[in-house]
Amino acid sequence: MKIFVHTIFNDTEKAYFRQNLPTRYELCFGSELSEENRKEAFLSSDLCLGNIPLAWAQATTSLQWLQLHSAGLDPYQQLTLPAFPITNLKGFFGQSVAETAVAGIMAMYRGIDRLARWQTTEKWVGTPMRASLHLLENAKVGILGGGAIGLKTAKILTGFDCDIKIFSRTAKGDSILDINTLGQFLPDLDILVACLPETQETIGLINKSLLELLKPSALFVNVGRGSAVDEEALIDILQENKIFGAVLDVTATEPLPPHHVLWQMPNVLLTQHTSGGWAEENLNKINFFLENLQRFEKGEPLLNMANLERGY
Amino acid sequence: MKIFVHTIFNDTEKAYFRQNLPTRYELCFGSELSEENRKEAFLSSDLCLGNIPLAWAQATTSLQWLQLHSAGLDPYQQLTLPAFPITNLKGFFGQSVAETAVAGIMAMYRGIDRLARWQTTEKWVGTPMRASLHLLENAKVGILGGGAIGLKTAKILTGFDCDIKIFSRTAKGDSILDINTLGQFLPDLDILVACLPETQETIGLINKSLLELLKPSALFVNVGRGSAVDEEALIDILQENKIFGAVLDVTATEPLPPHHVLWQMPNVLLTQHTSGGWAEENLNKINFFLENLQRFEKGEPLLNMANLERGY
Repeated sequence: MKIFVHTIFNDTEKAYFRQNLPTRYELCFGSELSEENRKEAFLSSDLCLGNIPLAWAQATTSLQWLQLHSAGLDPYQQLTLPAFPITNLKGFFGQSVAETAVAGIMAMYRGIDRLARWQTTEKWVGTPMRASLHLLENAKVGILGGGAIGLKTAKILTGFDCDIKIFSRTAKGDSILDINTLGQFLPDLDILVACLPETQETIGLINKSLLELLKPSALFVNVGRGSAVDEEALIDILQENKIFGAVLDVTATEPLPPHHVLWQMPNVLLTQHTSGGWAEENLNKINFFLENLQRFEKGEPLLNMANLERGY
Repeated sequence: MKIFVHTIFNDTEKAYFRQNLPTRYELCFGSELSEENRKEAFLSSDLCLGNIPLAWAQATTSLQWLQLHSAGLDPYQQLTLPAFPITNLKGFFGQSVAETAVAGIMAMYRGIDRLARWQTTEKWVGTPMRASLHLLENAKVGILGGGAIGLKTAKILTGFDCDIKIFSRTAKGDSILDINTLGQFLPDLDILVACLPETQETIGLINKSLLELLKPSALFVNVGRGSAVDEEALIDILQENKIFGAVLDVTATEPLPPHHVLWQMPNVLLTQHTSGGWAEENLNKINFFLENLQRFEKGEPLLNMANLERGY
């Protein structure tokens, strides 16, 4: 059986993959092939790890399983009744993304972004800066999304004694509120963390009128999808200092284009869609694939079957 | 009764102080006086809030109580048998300092310092950065000092499921280890957080041989006193990349002099002794003083009596 790998791995990771894969499988790393040979190699493969172009997924007649290396399903929602199961990495990035969300919040509250910049120019500010800092302790935090990222963020924040409310459209639980009630809680929040997947219901969900309900000291964080927020409205509000600031791991356009207004906004921290990353990210992706491969072999239900209709 | 205030307050804070102080007290803000009148005003005062020069403390014959606005007692340990009680702000800064400690750790682990600098120059790195990031989850953390800062840091880290060991010379408790056993644990630590007060026993405690026990991926954090660490040895180790990096709220010399080697070290984050600060810091100092003033009036034991011999 031939496995096509479209994820970019370094040599250590490739060696690890080879070492841990039963020898009955043939492993083909797309990145080692010329562009013209790559598609052909994919089309003759039985299994695939990685987010191949949509056209390839539409063209294959041999593929028996596609394991994505992302949680997001875009653009595969455009596939109509694919003949192969698609699995994703839902939940895989939860801890990592949640850690960047909290790192970003703490950076803004404790002035780390400014301190890092001042260090470059050898500028000592010290004591006069202290009055501009904030404590995360007891902060009122609203989390949009009851998936892995939202739940991990809530867990991390327990050590700060934050007052946490999770809002979700579908997730159920004692401490999870219906997302339609968000408006009534917004004016009271110190921090709003968006961890929403991209679905038909979440695109543009955080619109101008919701953003305008936030109080002047509020911090907005988006570690979900850029499409969840009306970015123009957010920029207006930030430019007019109607809220304290924003931590954005995701933006409408990525990479953020040169001279984009967000680059130079002092109340914005851009984390460049790195929140899902950590040193062992790729090795763990390989481990996840290998675990799912065992299930595939035995005909067991695969982990993380993607629901193309729902979008996650 | 005349209260001399040597702490610098803004107008809002002064108004708050006046409003909440019983009218039988006369309030004298040193910052509103000329330099020559200031000492005189202090010498005719009965009570004092703030860290006055040592010479003033040695010269006064009228002072009945000195409330410091710091946790540290330096330089008042040089006073021999002062005729007035001295109280400090031990514990007051615990949450704030612990939050900066964790903010610094998270910044280094999640690349926030680099991202903030890249933002200034509109440099998009994105995906290739991810492999250089780390997770705080399950990290092995050693905390030096079992005071308010150390305990608050440990509490915050519970949300990350860190494996935490607190080392102390004097504090007792189930999870608190004798600081003399530190050496045997150091090689295994991912993060070492120093939250030690300045005492005869802590000066230079984190010496070259202890630092050299840290592993290459270890992060060193100092939010206690700069004097606790052999700074030259630390700089050597950082320059040779023998450890992952350092977050330093305190240094041997503050402000850090221009062209000091620490300014431009990419594996160092300097937080410029701001960790103890937050927006309500001064109002809360006033509240603490007012609470202690009630005790003083009633002849009750004062909160936070300083132990000049011990140093905190």
